[in-house]
Amino acid sequence: MNKISVLGVLYDQKSSFLKGPALAPPLIRNYLHNGASNLYAENGMDIGNASMIVDAGDFSTENYAEIEAKALELISEESKLFTLGGDHSISYPIIKAHHAVHSESFDILHIDAHSDLYDQYEGDGFSHACPFARVMEGKLAERLVQVGIRTLNQHQKEQAEKFGVEIIQMKEYELSAIPKFERPIYLSLDMDAIDPAFAPGVSHHEPGGFTSREVIQIIQQIDVPIIGADLVEYNPIRDINGITGALAAKLMKEILSKMLS
Amino acid sequence: MNKISVLGVLYDQKSSFLKGPALAPPLIRNYLHNGASNLYAENGMDIGNASMIVDAGDFSTENYAEIEAKALELISEESKLFTLGGDHSISYPIIKAHHAVHSESFDILHIDAHSDLYDQYEGDGFSHACPFARVMEGKLAERLVQVGIRTLNQHQKEQAEKFGVEIIQMKEYELSAIPKFERPIYLSLDMDAIDPAFAPGVSHHEPGGFTSREVIQIIQQIDVPIIGADLVEYNPIRDINGITGALAAKLMKEILSKMLS
Amino acid sequence: MNKISVLGVLYDQKSSFLKGPALAPPLIRNYLHNGASNLYAENGMDIGNASMIVDAGDFSTENYAEIEAKALELISEESKLFTLGGDHSISYPIIKAHHAVHSESFDILHIDAHSDLYDQYEGDGFSHACPFARVMEGKLAERLVQVGIRTLNQHQKEQAEKFGVEIIQMKEYELSAIPKFERPIYLSLDMDAIDPAFAPGVSHHEPGGFTSREVIQIIQQIDVPIIGADLVEYNPIRDINGITGALAAKLMKEILSKMLS
Amino acid sequence: MNKISVLGVLYDQKSSFLKGPALAPPLIRNYLHNGASNLYAENGMDIGNASMIVDAGDFSTENYAEIEAKALELISEESKLFTLGGDHSISYPIIKAHHAVHSESFDILHIDAHSDLYDQYEGDGFSHACPFARVMEGKLAERLVQVGIRTLNQHQKEQAEKFGVEIIQMKEYELSAIPKFERPIYLSLDMDAIDPAFAPGVSHHEPGGFTSREVIQIIQQIDVPIIGADLVEYNPIRDINGITGALAAKLMKEILSKMLS
Amino acid sequence: MNKISVLGVLYDQKSSFLKGPALAPPLIRNYLHNGASNLYAENGMDIGNASMIVDAGDFSTENYAEIEAKALELISEESKLFTLGGDHSISYPIIKAHHAVHSESFDILHIDAHSDLYDQYEGDGFSHACPFARVMEGKLAERLVQVGIRTLNQHQKEQAEKFGVEIIQMKEYELSAIPKFERPIYLSLDMDAIDPAFAPGVSHHEPGGFTSREVIQIIQQIDVPIIGADLVEYNPIRDINGITGALAAKLMKEILSKMLS
Amino acid sequence: MNKISVLGVLYDQKSSFLKGPALAPPLIRNYLHNGASNLYAENGMDIGNASMIVDAGDFSTENYAEIEAKALELISEESKLFTLGGDHSISYPIIKAHHAVHSESFDILHIDAHSDLYDQYEGDGFSHACPFARVMEGKLAERLVQVGIRTLNQHQKEQAEKFGVEIIQMKEYELSAIPKFERPIYLSLDMDAIDPAFAPGVSHHEPGGFTSREVIQIIQQIDVPIIGADLVEYNPIRDINGITGALAAKLMKEILSKMLS
Ligand SMILES: [Mn+2]
Ligand SMILES: [Mn+2]
Ligand SMILES: [Mn+2]
Ligand SMILES: [Mn+2]
Ligand SMILES: [Mn+2]
Ligand SMILES: [Mn+2]
Ligand SMILES: [Mn+2]
Ligand SMILES: [Mn+2]
Ligand SMILES: [Mn+2]
Ligand SMILES: [Mn+2]
Ligand SMILES: [Mn+2]
Ligand SMILES: [Mn+2]
Repeated sequence: MNKISVLGVLYDQKSSFLKGPALAPPLIRNYLHNGASNLYAENGMDIGNASMIVDAGDFSTENYAEIEAKALELISEESKLFTLGGDHSISYPIIKAHHAVHSESFDILHIDAHSDLYDQYEGDGFSHACPFARVMEGKLAERLVQVGIRTLNQHQKEQAEKFGVEIIQMKEYELSAIPKFERPIYLSLDMDAIDPAFAPGVSHHEPGGFTSREVIQIIQQIDVPIIGADLVEYNPIRDINGITGALAAKLMKEILSKMLS
Repeated sequence: MNKISVLGVLYDQKSSFLKGPALAPPLIRNYLHNGASNLYAENGMDIGNASMIVDAGDFSTENYAEIEAKALELISEESKLFTLGGDHSISYPIIKAHHAVHSESFDILHIDAHSDLYDQYEGDGFSHACPFARVMEGKLAERLVQVGIRTLNQHQKEQAEKFGVEIIQMKEYELSAIPKFERPIYLSLDMDAIDPAFAPGVSHHEPGGFTSREVIQIIQQIDVPIIGADLVEYNPIRDINGITGALAAKLMKEILSKMLS
Repeated sequence: MNKISVLGVLYDQKSSFLKGPALAPPLIRNYLHNGASNLYAENGMDIGNASMIVDAGDFSTENYAEIEAKALELISEESKLFTLGGDHSISYPIIKAHHAVHSESFDILHIDAHSDLYDQYEGDGFSHACPFARVMEGKLAERLVQVGIRTLNQHQKEQAEKFGVEIIQMKEYELSAIPKFERPIYLSLDMDAIDPAFAPGVSHHEPGGFTSREVIQIIQQIDVPIIGADLVEYNPIRDINGITGALAAKLMKEILSKMLS
Repeated sequence: MNKISVLGVLYDQKSSFLKGPALAPPLIRNYLHNGASNLYAENGMDIGNASMIVDAGDFSTENYAEIEAKALELISEESKLFTLGGDHSISYPIIKAHHAVHSESFDILHIDAHSDLYDQYEGDGFSHACPFARVMEGKLAERLVQVGIRTLNQHQKEQAEKFGVEIIQMKEYELSAIPKFERPIYLSLDMDAIDPAFAPGVSHHEPGGFTSREVIQIIQQIDVPIIGADLVEYNPIRDINGITGALAAKLMKEILSKMLS
Repeated sequence: MNKISVLGVLYDQKSSFLKGPALAPPLIRNYLHNGASNLYAENGMDIGNASMIVDAGDFSTENYAEIEAKALELISEESKLFTLGGDHSISYPIIKAHHAVHSESFDILHIDAHSDLYDQYEGDGFSHACPFARVMEGKLAERLVQVGIRTLNQHQKEQAEKFGVEIIQMKEYELSAIPKFERPIYLSLDMDAIDPAFAPGVSHHEPGGFTSREVIQIIQQIDVPIIGADLVEYNPIRDINGITGALAAKLMKEILSKMLS
Repeated sequence: MNKISVLGVLYDQKSSFLKGPALAPPLIRNYLHNGASNLYAENGMDIGNASMIVDAGDFSTENYAEIEAKALELISEESKLFTLGGDHSISYPIIKAHHAVHSESFDILHIDAHSDLYDQYEGDGFSHACPFARVMEGKLAERLVQVGIRTLNQHQKEQAEKFGVEIIQMKEYELSAIPKFERPIYLSLDMDAIDPAFAPGVSHHEPGGFTSREVIQIIQQIDVPIIGADLVEYNPIRDINGITGALAAKLMKEILSKMLS
């Protein structure tokens, strides 16, 4: 690999409850650079000085279809993509682009309070509640492993069974319950996986979530290559005192350093 | 069992520090139904579709004595009671009503930062700091098991010894330290058991408390019948960004699904 | 030992990012005494009734050099010092005073998100980012053990190696990883060691930190004498709803009760 | 007149943007009685000691039609009604009830950021954006005078002309611009008439509104009898630090004292 | 006159509802010097460079009687006193000290939401609700002029009549309604005179108050010498985002520049 | 005129105290379109339907010099520019571009708490504290009229005299004090002109400012053409509950409708 493009995605048209995640990218960049912390990840890598990390700017569109096209521009065998911001609907077109570019298959690690497996939500099959139904139908990944889930209803349980999704619900979570991967993975991180005490700035407060440390641990123990990643659903409109923004910036550092290493 | 009545209790006359818990019931119902989450508990039960759960409305009184009477109306061998809101003083009359109705004895699982065993508090033997002294004097339960306690003073320690209360203090807490019950239990959940980071909306901030997940785990591992339960001391006046209200609604779903199963 | 002096330190001239910690002492005292909790530590000791604890008032200066002099006034073989408030730069002169007074050597337990080992920071060798470089250069302590660190950069890593600092980074933290001490210790507690969810009132939000309970556990498991202690970097200007102030007051009770026992 | 019934209305089914006003009544009562202020209105009347003011409790329904019926129960030539809470849709059925009971005609003074004259809003003719269209079609009042309006669009301007509504827009507001009334009035007060700086706890923040004092002045200068009144659209979910709740309680005192005098 | 002493008063033992004003002085000084604004008053005077202004530090006591003694130390015909912080109970001993020192009589301008004329409050004749009853009984001032009052009850109205207090209630306030003074004045400024939108950081939210500009205008139009002044009742525990602290610092600059000019 | 370009300016490199205004443009657009209000200005113009208003997107740069170039691209005799966001340093290059394009001279109406006339600030002549010194030196406008100023120090007073700036300080403000313009104007609106109660989301809280209505009135009474305008210094990082964002969106509607009419 030669580089990682960091792309802000200014898109939240598929949010069901509140808008806001389209505003996330410049705010996360601000928290990363505001001097409250340094640019080292916890593995000792200096993200601010990594020549392989290239800022691809912010991508703004109201046309869902353009997200896939934009991702295709930035992904190649030599170039990874890390996206910042947006609602969770963007993961489907981005994963589709990865599938198109990469000849080898990959698995997905999906960290979320919700399984996002709805066939449709409020009449839209591309809602932020649906991306992983589309991913599985399209056979875009070999395995889908979900952690942090704590809102499974009957429909989503049936979808999970139909698609063979491996779910580690929050109620049974421990770090060692996450299965070993044997292929490279795509990492999709929904900020609402984290408890609202640590991440109030999300559209859906779902208590009983991860501590900030638990999510960092999940990222740090990944031992296969990450071919691409997104960090979605940070909603600055609901944040308090910048706490969620600072956490998103920290997680961005951890993910990028893991993608590089 | 044929049903569970859900009763809001609009009463906080016995709060020692701040009023507010009387305002809790409509707000918790609001967070339950506002569309930010669904109505499934984590065990897969759909609380919104459980015909055995009957809304008994909100009960407002300034007369402490009427609480017991109201509870007696709603409890029978076939009908359980779950109360929502109020300060902790309400647990004594409600447990007394359970004792009167049930021919078989039961134990109590009490989750709280405080043991609430004062003989009197500011001259009132029925203060929210006293209910479990009254319960034990009245021999209303076989065993009283308290978890999350982190404010024991000399007087309360002596009261606990006198009454044989089993206390798992927060400083020694682990899930497995909670003793096995052999009788059905009454569950009394004071929201201030949870750390103020997760539950700022309580009258008494007592740091060093449970995470939201730890309280959910305590509920989920209960393996004897719950004959009745209360969720008390949520004080909306002190909440931030609705975080405590959403947590109370989540805990309500977990408790109800456990009472049903 | 005959007494512990409790001294507020109204000093934050060496803060690099935001001022505020000079305002901490009266606010922490307020949270300790405002009636929301009692004055018992979790080990059953009544801090409000311990005749050995003497309030030494608040010390206000703009002259960094006077901090050491003030500490020397209050420390003797018979009299310990616990300081409340201020930025982390104050730990160097206070530890220097301890070194001067005590004939026997001691170790340091330093709880922080940051190692504070910079040789200089923004041109100042006495910045709040530097105290433990000065401590180690001065050979003021035998061992320096740091826990909670999650911001190590290359320079600080080199400093740590040079001085033989033992660091338990947050990424590898578990209670049992803290080494056994064989000498008395000085305890230095930077509130930003704790996750911003529990302690938003600090100048530097560094996510992925301790829960409030984890810090209490670290204090409670100390099994050698504490000869002196500080609680620094609480910044009331950034607090929300008094949550950090209440936590600082709780930690103060735990530290004092441990110093006494 | 012999009495005024104070009725809380727990209803916000017709809110277009956010739910919340159904939660208002118990919170306003809480702010009225929490000891931060006394119960005297500014005209020297003691609201807490006025035997003619009768608390009619809180009325909870999900059936819009029942609001009119409930109002009819409480209104007579001898008994006025003051309602507390709810969204603005409740004013139409309540005014209709007044029209039915009173043989003499009356005018309406409507204080709001919005004219609420939509023929339909999102397909609902009884939305909180429509009550005064229904009132005027029903010829329930002689004159409708609106003050504070700052969101007129073309449709509402046409509705106002069609119905002969007298609008004093905020951009031209001064106290003396409010016309003299010659009949008794019904007073309808939407909290969003007030600037969000003073009343953040409303569903629709519309800047450029009244100061709290300006609204008090409007109430105090009324010089004809008030036959009924409502205070609507306070949304506790959006309040900050209780500021809107305290203002609603203050306005309640002012309106009641004016209704009595 | 040769100088003005600026004294912080760390005292709130006589607050009836919430503690907090004892914490005000260091916070106000912080807002004055934090770089968000400069040190010029609006009349062009540079407060930061006025050699006649002398910082007398912060005075902490739990003994009400010592406040008068402290004031006596600092006041002389050549030296004025400006006090910062504390609850309103401190004005009585401070005004008594002015009366003792000054051979010529003076008037008082008292800006407040409350008249603070209670004979006793909760059994205490020196409560923060009583200082001006004591001042008038002691004939410490010729005239007492109160502005901003909006909570007069029957008892206070009678007290005002008995003592000949001149009250300009908020409901009739305009700048020109403040009477001309013909003697020097003592200025007593209770922050709760200002509307909670501008000054949320007070113990008693009383809506319908002054805008920040209106209070500045009252100070700026004073055209007789100010012999002494206090700024009381700022409660940092209730402040939001530092807004009240910044306002207190601004008012301090305006009062000091007027005292000097 | 044929059109108005609306350009977001993502630039705050010249802020002296806090960064943040670079984040403003997408947030203001969000508040404009989030459904809480409609798109009509108070003069009845529908901003959402005005074909002459063209969104020019957001302009991001770290190179101060590019701002002028970007402005030059968008301005012509037929095309006006309205910029959204950024710190106040951007006004100088934008006004310079207007001067270059327009053959006729124009005046400036500058609404601000600060005169921004520093010759240099912290060593930078292009700081956000300096733009109007540069404008006047460059003779880019005929008259500079400033309103809302409440922080004049000696240096700025001298600069104002040297350049002939007409200042209506806040302490003497009334709407009629604003002089009649006889040329077209450029309007520069710094959000900190407004009191922090209405606009907490600014870097410098300067109490005693305009109400939101007063600023709207200033805009609405402009009776000469506006050839260009900026809205600067909104800092989302400091906003509370979205109150400043909603106000910025409202002011944007008012300015655009006035530019069109
Ligand atoms: Mn998701
Ligand atoms: Mn999710
Ligand atoms: Mn309890
Ligand atoms: Mn408790
Ligand atoms: Mn430190
Ligand atoms: Mn630190
Ligand atoms: Mn309305
Ligand atoms: Mn409205
Ligand atoms: Mn007062
Ligand atoms: Mn007052
Ligand atoms: Mn400016
Ligand atoms: Mn400015």
